[in-house]
Amino acid sequence: MSTATLSLSELTAAATNAAKTAAAASDAERAAWLTAVADALDANAAELVEIADAETNLGAPRLTGEVARTTGQLRLFARVITEGSYLEAIIDHGDPGATPPRPDLRRILRPLGPVAVFSASNFPFAFSVAGGDTASALAVGCPVIVKAHSGHVKLSERTAELVAGALRAAGAPEGLFALVSGREAGTALVQDPAIKAVGFTGSIPGGRALFDLATSRPDPIPFYGELGSLNPVVITEAALAARSGELAAGLAASFTLGAGQFCTKPGLVFIPAGTGFAAEVAAASKDKPGARMLTHRIAEAYPGGLHQFAAVPGVKVAAGTVEQDAAADGAAPVVFSTSAATVLERPSELLEECFGPTTLLIEYTGAEDLAAVLAKVPGSLTATVHAQPGEEVTSLVEQLSGLAGRVLFDGWPTGVAVTWSQQHGGPYPATTSLFTSVGATAVRRFQRPVAYQDAPEAILHPALRESNHLGIPRRVDGELVLP
Amino acid sequence: MSTATLSLSELTAAATNAAKTAAAASDAERAAWLTAVADALDANAAELVEIADAETNLGAPRLTGEVARTTGQLRLFARVITEGSYLEAIIDHGDPGATPPRPDLRRILRPLGPVAVFSASNFPFAFSVAGGDTASALAVGCPVIVKAHSGHVKLSERTAELVAGALRAAGAPEGLFALVSGREAGTALVQDPAIKAVGFTGSIPGGRALFDLATSRPDPIPFYGELGSLNPVVITEAALAARSGELAAGLAASFTLGAGQFCTKPGLVFIPAGTGFAAEVAAASKDKPGARMLTHRIAEAYPGGLHQFAAVPGVKVAAGTVEQDAAADGAAPVVFSTSAATVLERPSELLEECFGPTTLLIEYTGAEDLAAVLAKVPGSLTATVHAQPGEEVTSLVEQLSGLAGRVLFDGWPTGVAVTWSQQHGGPYPATTSLFTSVGATAVRRFQRPVAYQDAPEAILHPALRESNHLGIPRRVDGELVLP
Repeated sequence: MSTATLSLSELTAAATNAAKTAAAASDAERAAWLTAVADALDANAAELVEIADAETNLGAPRLTGEVARTTGQLRLFARVITEGSYLEAIIDHGDPGATPPRPDLRRILRPLGPVAVFSASNFPFAFSVAGGDTASALAVGCPVIVKAHSGHVKLSERTAELVAGALRAAGAPEGLFALVSGREAGTALVQDPAIKAVGFTGSIPGGRALFDLATSRPDPIPFYGELGSLNPVVITEAALAARSGELAAGLAASFTLGAGQFCTKPGLVFIPAGTGFAAEVAAASKDKPGARMLTHRIAEAYPGGLHQFAAVPGVKVAAGTVEQDAAADGAAPVVFSTSAATVLERPSELLEECFGPTTLLIEYTGAEDLAAVLAKVPGSLTATVHAQPGEEVTSLVEQLSGLAGRVLFDGWPTGVAVTWSQQHGGPYPATTSLFTSVGATAVRRFQRPVAYQDAPEAILHPALRESNHLGIPRRVDGELVLP
Repeated sequence: MSTATLSLSELTAAATNAAKTAAAASDAERAAWLTAVADALDANAAELVEIADAETNLGAPRLTGEVARTTGQLRLFARVITEGSYLEAIIDHGDPGATPPRPDLRRILRPLGPVAVFSASNFPFAFSVAGGDTASALAVGCPVIVKAHSGHVKLSERTAELVAGALRAAGAPEGLFALVSGREAGTALVQDPAIKAVGFTGSIPGGRALFDLATSRPDPIPFYGELGSLNPVVITEAALAARSGELAAGLAASFTLGAGQFCTKPGLVFIPAGTGFAAEVAAASKDKPGARMLTHRIAEAYPGGLHQFAAVPGVKVAAGTVEQDAAADGAAPVVFSTSAATVLERPSELLEECFGPTTLLIEYTGAEDLAAVLAKVPGSLTATVHAQPGEEVTSLVEQLSGLAGRVLFDGWPTGVAVTWSQQHGGPYPATTSLFTSVGATAVRRFQRPVAYQDAPEAILHPALRESNHLGIPRRVDGELVLP
C-alpha cells in the first residue's frame, strides 16, 4: 500500500481489485481492520499530535482529544457493522398461490466500490485521512483513496502510513487504502470511472466545483459534500431576561473555539431588539486571546471577511476590530451587530460564512420579524434555540428543523457527539445529500441495495440465508425480527 | 385542488403550505389519505381502464391488473408508515459524566417538502399520476405535483381529479396534490425553488436533461430518475442443455410482453456458442402477433432501432423482420443474434436499449468471454441467470450484482413484485440514485434526517418521546427495540 510510487490509474485499479475482496469479507473481518487502524493511531497518538500541531496550530489538548474521537469513531463503526442492521436485510418469502404469483425476494445493501475522500483543513484527524468518511466507507467494504489536505500534508502521509500498515497487518487486501496529494489528483479522482462515490469536507466554492464534476460524469456518482454552515442561534426574550450573562459567556466560548474554525460555529445569533446583550457578548469576548489559524492563507482571508461585514450600512462592530493582521498576530474575536431589517435588505452580504472567531448578532422585533429573516438563512448543519422551560416555541422549532440537520436546545453547536443518532448534515449548502457524515448512519452513503429473486440458499449472502446464523436484525415477511 | 386555473407559482406556493400540514399530520392520518385514493381508483377502475386503453393500446386485462397493482401499492405504503420503522427513530440518552459530556440526541426522518413527479409512458397507472413516486412521497408527508405524460393526458386528468377529490374528502390539506402538463411546465418544476426532489421514469436523454437541471440548481436537489435498462440474461450451458425449449418459450413471452415496452424487458441474452437456441427462440416468437405500441411516436421509432442493430456487421436477424411499419401494422417481434466478440467491438451500437418487442442473443465461449462482455454492459434494473441446481455460479452472480439492483434466478425480469424487499433501481443509467422506486423502501427518497439535541419532551415528534406511545420500532442507546 505504498502510494508514492503508483500512478492514479494503478491506485484505482488496485482499489477495484480490493473492492471484491472487501465485499466478500465478513463483518467481523472488516471490524477487525477498523480496530487495527484505531489501535495503530492510538499507539502513535503522541507523534501524530506533534506533527499535527506543527502543521495546524490547533494545540496539543484539542488534537489529542481529536485523535481519541477519531479512534472512537473507527470503533463505533466496527460495532455498527457487527450489529448488522446496517445491511437492511429484508426477506419476503414467495407465494406461488398469489395473483400474480409472488417470488421469493431478499434484499441487502452492498458496498458501492472504491470511494474518494477529500480531507478537511480544520479536523486533521476526525475529518481527514482516517476520519469519518474513510471509516464509514471501509466499514461497509469500500476501498478508499484519500486526497490529502494541503494544510497538513506531513500528518496525512504519516497517518496514511500507519493506516496502511495496520490494514496490511490485519490481513486487509492490498489496494484497500491509498493517499494522493494535489488538486490535480483530486479532480482526476472524482472523474475516474473506478470511483463510485466521493466524500468531501471543505469550502462552498471548492465543494461545488467537485460536486459539479461528479454529477456531470457520463455516469454521475453520489457526492457527499459538507460545504458551509452559518449555524443560526435564536435566543428568546424570556431566555435573555433570565440568563443573559450565561448566554453571553457560552456564545463567546463557542464562536471563538478553535479560532472559530469549526463547521458548527454559531455564525448568526438572533436576539430580541433593544437589550444590552451585544455589550455583554463584547465583554465576554474581549479577553479571548488572538489565535493562530490553520494556515497562512486562512489567516490572510479572515480580515477580508470581517471588512465585508463591516462595510454593510447598518452593521456595527460590537467587540474587537476589523483592522487586524491575523496572519502575523493571530485571529482576534470580532462581534458584529445589526438588525433583522438590515439582513433582509442585504442577505447576500450578511448571510455568508466567515471562517474565524467572529459572529453576527441580529436583533429581531417579534416572532414575525424573526420568521421572516430565518426564512432567508441558507441550509445549515445546526440550528439552536435558547428558550425558557415551558415557553411555546413549536413553530420556531419547526422552522429551524427545515433549515438544519440538528436542532439544539439550550446548548452550543460546536460539539458533535459521535453516536448512533447523530446527524451532521443539512439542506444545501450545509451538505449535498440526505445523509450524515458523522454517526452510525453515515455508512448508508456507501451502500446500494440489491435484491435476489428466487436465489438458491447457497448463493445468498449469509445475512439473507434462512437460518440467520449471523444473528442480525432482519425484516421477514413484513415483520421486523430481532435475533 | 383544481389545477387548471392555477399558475405554476400558485401551485408550488400551495404545495409549500400543504407541506407544513402534511408534515404535522400523524401517520394514521396520512395512511387514511392513501387508502382514500386507493378506494377512489378501485371504485372507478372500469372507467379509468377504458380511458387508458384508448390512449395507450395496452389492453383491458393488463390495465385492469395495473390499477389493482397501483391501489395495492398505495395500501402497502399506508401499512409501511403505520408500522413506523420508516422514521428510523434513534434515541441516545445523554451522559453528563462522559468525556466530553454526551447530550441527549434523538434522530428522525422528516419529509423533504414538495416533490415533482414525472409520469412514465408505459405504466399509465403504476408509474404515473397515482403511481409509486406519488404514493411514496405522499406517504411520508411530501406534497406532489405530477407532470402528466403526453401519451395519456386524458387519463392523467381523470386520475388527478379522482386523487384530488379523494384527498379532499379525506381531510388532506389543499395543495397536497396537483397535476401539470407540457414540457415547459416540467422543466420549470425541476428548477422551482419550492420543489425539493424529483421522481422520474422515462428515457435516458430526457431523464439526463432533467437530472442535469436538478443538479445545476443554485441548491441542487435529489433527482430520482429511472432512465433505461438492458436487463441482461445469462443462460449457462447446463441450463440450455437441460431445458432449451422452456427457456425459449419463457424468453419469447417476456421480451414481447406489453409490446416489449417494459423497463425490465430482457434486451440482452447471453447464451453458449454453437447451440440451436436462436432457432428455438425464433420459433417461439414467430407466432406472437404484432402489437400496437403506446404512442405513434414510439411505434415510428421502433423500426429505426431495429435497423441500427441489423446494420452492425456480425449481427444476424434470427426471427422477424426489421422491415416493418410498426405504426400502421403494430410492432412485430424481432430476435437478433451475434457473438460476444462483436459486442466487444461495437459496444456503443449494440448495448443500447431498443423500446419494443426485440431482444439480442449474444453467444459466448466460456466464462472468461462472458465476464469480458458483461463488464461492458451498462447499469441495469435487473440481471438474470438461468443455471442448473448446484451449478457453480458464484463469481457470475457477483458480477451481475455489480451491474443491477435485482438479480433473478431461473425467472424472467418483466414482473416486479411490490413488496418490502423489492429493489427497482440499479447503477446508472438504470437509475440516478441509490434507492428503489418500487417497494417499501422507496419512501426513504423523500425524507431527510433531523436530530434533536436536549429537546424538551413536549417539543419532540411523538416517535421520539420517551414513552413510545406510537408503538414503533426504535433504536435506543444502540439497541434495536421492538414495541
